[in-house]
Amino acid sequence: MPLTLPEVIDLHDPELALRLQRKIDQKTKPLGSLGQLETWAQQLGLILGTESPQLQQAQMVVFAADHGLVQQGVSAYPSEVTWQMVQNFLSGGACVSVLARQHGLALHVADCGVNHQFDAHPGLWDLKVGMGTADASRGPAMTMAQCQQALNNGLQLLEQLPGNVLLLGEMGIGNTSAASLLMSRLLNLDIALCTGAGTGLDDAGVQRKLTVLRQVLQLHAQVTEPLAVLASMGGFEIATMVGAIVQAAALRRVIVVDGFITTAAVLVAQALQPRVLQRCVFAHQSGERGHALLLQHLRVRPLLQLGLRLGEGSGAALAWPLLQSAAQLMCEMASFEAAGVAKQTT
Amino acid sequence: MPLTLPEVIDLHDPELALRLQRKIDQKTKPLGSLGQLETWAQQLGLILGTESPQLQQAQMVVFAADHGLVQQGVSAYPSEVTWQMVQNFLSGGACVSVLARQHGLALHVADCGVNHQFDAHPGLWDLKVGMGTADASRGPAMTMAQCQQALNNGLQLLEQLPGNVLLLGEMGIGNTSAASLLMSRLLNLDIALCTGAGTGLDDAGVQRKLTVLRQVLQLHAQVTEPLAVLASMGGFEIATMVGAIVQAAALRRVIVVDGFITTAAVLVAQALQPRVLQRCVFAHQSGERGHALLLQHLRVRPLLQLGLRLGEGSGAALAWPLLQSAAQLMCEMASFEAAGVAKQTT
Repeated sequence: MPLTLPEVIDLHDPELALRLQRKIDQKTKPLGSLGQLETWAQQLGLILGTESPQLQQAQMVVFAADHGLVQQGVSAYPSEVTWQMVQNFLSGGACVSVLARQHGLALHVADCGVNHQFDAHPGLWDLKVGMGTADASRGPAMTMAQCQQALNNGLQLLEQLPGNVLLLGEMGIGNTSAASLLMSRLLNLDIALCTGAGTGLDDAGVQRKLTVLRQVLQLHAQVTEPLAVLASMGGFEIATMVGAIVQAAALRRVIVVDGFITTAAVLVAQALQPRVLQRCVFAHQSGERGHALLLQHLRVRPLLQLGLRLGEGSGAALAWPLLQSAAQLMCEMASFEAAGVAKQTT
Repeated sequence: MPLTLPEVIDLHDPELALRLQRKIDQKTKPLGSLGQLETWAQQLGLILGTESPQLQQAQMVVFAADHGLVQQGVSAYPSEVTWQMVQNFLSGGACVSVLARQHGLALHVADCGVNHQFDAHPGLWDLKVGMGTADASRGPAMTMAQCQQALNNGLQLLEQLPGNVLLLGEMGIGNTSAASLLMSRLLNLDIALCTGAGTGLDDAGVQRKLTVLRQVLQLHAQVTEPLAVLASMGGFEIATMVGAIVQAAALRRVIVVDGFITTAAVLVAQALQPRVLQRCVFAHQSGERGHALLLQHLRVRPLLQLGLRLGEGSGAALAWPLLQSAAQLMCEMASFEAAGVAKQTT
């Protein structure tokens, strides 16, 4: 079954952009004084096609899966931590759980391929493609059929999801390795520039990880087409996220990107449908080596720089109230005229 | 009447710091992966003297006043904008009003010396010392008696204020000039390094402003003692804020510092009582020239860098949910043991 991706329309609209800028400039504040929030307000207006953007029923989805490559010792934590952390998300004790509760964000975990059988839970969606990917240092991480199934799962998930905002989260021991591999191959960058400590490898650990990742790239040296790269080296949670990103973009939703792994998913998604980038806001620049360079290649500027390197969607959740501020300021802040405030004299 | 400042105790407590760090490190996340939020969580614990800091009844106070120096053309806006913006704060249309509403922050305006008679309003406190300061290019901005009155107003205000968090805001056309003057004199820095565009002067405007500020410094060349510097060049809103900061510190409250002007008030406050700095969290680095250098001299690191240059407390309000996250993560996030998650293997 060949994969059919939904159409993603071009949001380029100079006339709306002008009206948005005029509205921002008439607010009771010095011109440009809200800095990067003004850029975000513009983008939200363009995505939602309105001068008064309202963010509704924001959905945080944590895409989770296991990685066969972990057998090669690429992570500081064992694979079991993936399912244990999923339980932690569901019972409300993880970082993203606390943040979602703080901000009233709907939080769900999508099991895209965790190596564990979970009991049914209202916060858990079963999108399992397998019990974790195969070891990418010995063959493709997934078959093309599995890759397409994961993408389709993401596409369909978004069709059923309410609201106009998707916040991306992820969990998967080993998934910084998958993200580094995708980045290195798709951007044609040395893997050393794309590889960091993940959950906390020491320097020797990073060197071992690098050696493994070089072997993977060597094994799949002929693979360059985006979907084939994703199948060879990506994770089930990343592939599912790619589908979700493309569908969210097609539905003209705001996509809040978290750290290194979710940005790598955006990289794959935009290789398939370049206009998805118009809908993405980048929450933060993570402390994980590779993320800064990846953001630079996408020519995007993240909102926060807090040295986070946790994943889970924690950075997206932290940026969420700022994004909401950008929208609410557009809708609720008074103009000079309405407030009876004198304008600039010089 | 000589001014008596309340005692500000030393929060240095290595034993509590150790317990806080241990609690942070046992949370279900890689060590250090919450970056700067962990630093904030530590500081909140030390300020409030507990491993489980809870922020309660946070109070945003916008200190407002007019400046005689505006007659010399140091601002892009006329003085009338001060009272007009105060009305805007009270009617809910200003940036800080929208943000306070978003986050459920109590918002009050302290009229420390606005050149306008306001009707009574539940959101407005009358702490008027005068109808704006005198022109500091012709003499002291305020008398020492006025300066002490403003400080006392701030001290007393805080005694009556509930909660354990004070967020600092300010409004006063001309007050970047006052802040630049205080910074230049108290830190012995060239005024050019301390002076920016304020609400939006062009380059020629900044040069005119600089010429005026040099004249002020020349006129008060002999004044170096912090209170005398404050009286000669400061504003009523800054002096009142200095009192509020010292009292908030004495009451062991968290002080959320906004942009350039509120940081200048902290500079004066810590010259009087150095330990106030232990209670200050710095919300953001503003786009106003001088702020980065001022933060550097205080050896503090701000949370956000969004290119804001609005004042009002807008940056403090934007950082507020992140500060609250830091506190809530300490209280609500599960430990590895409680969640049954395996710890790092390397």
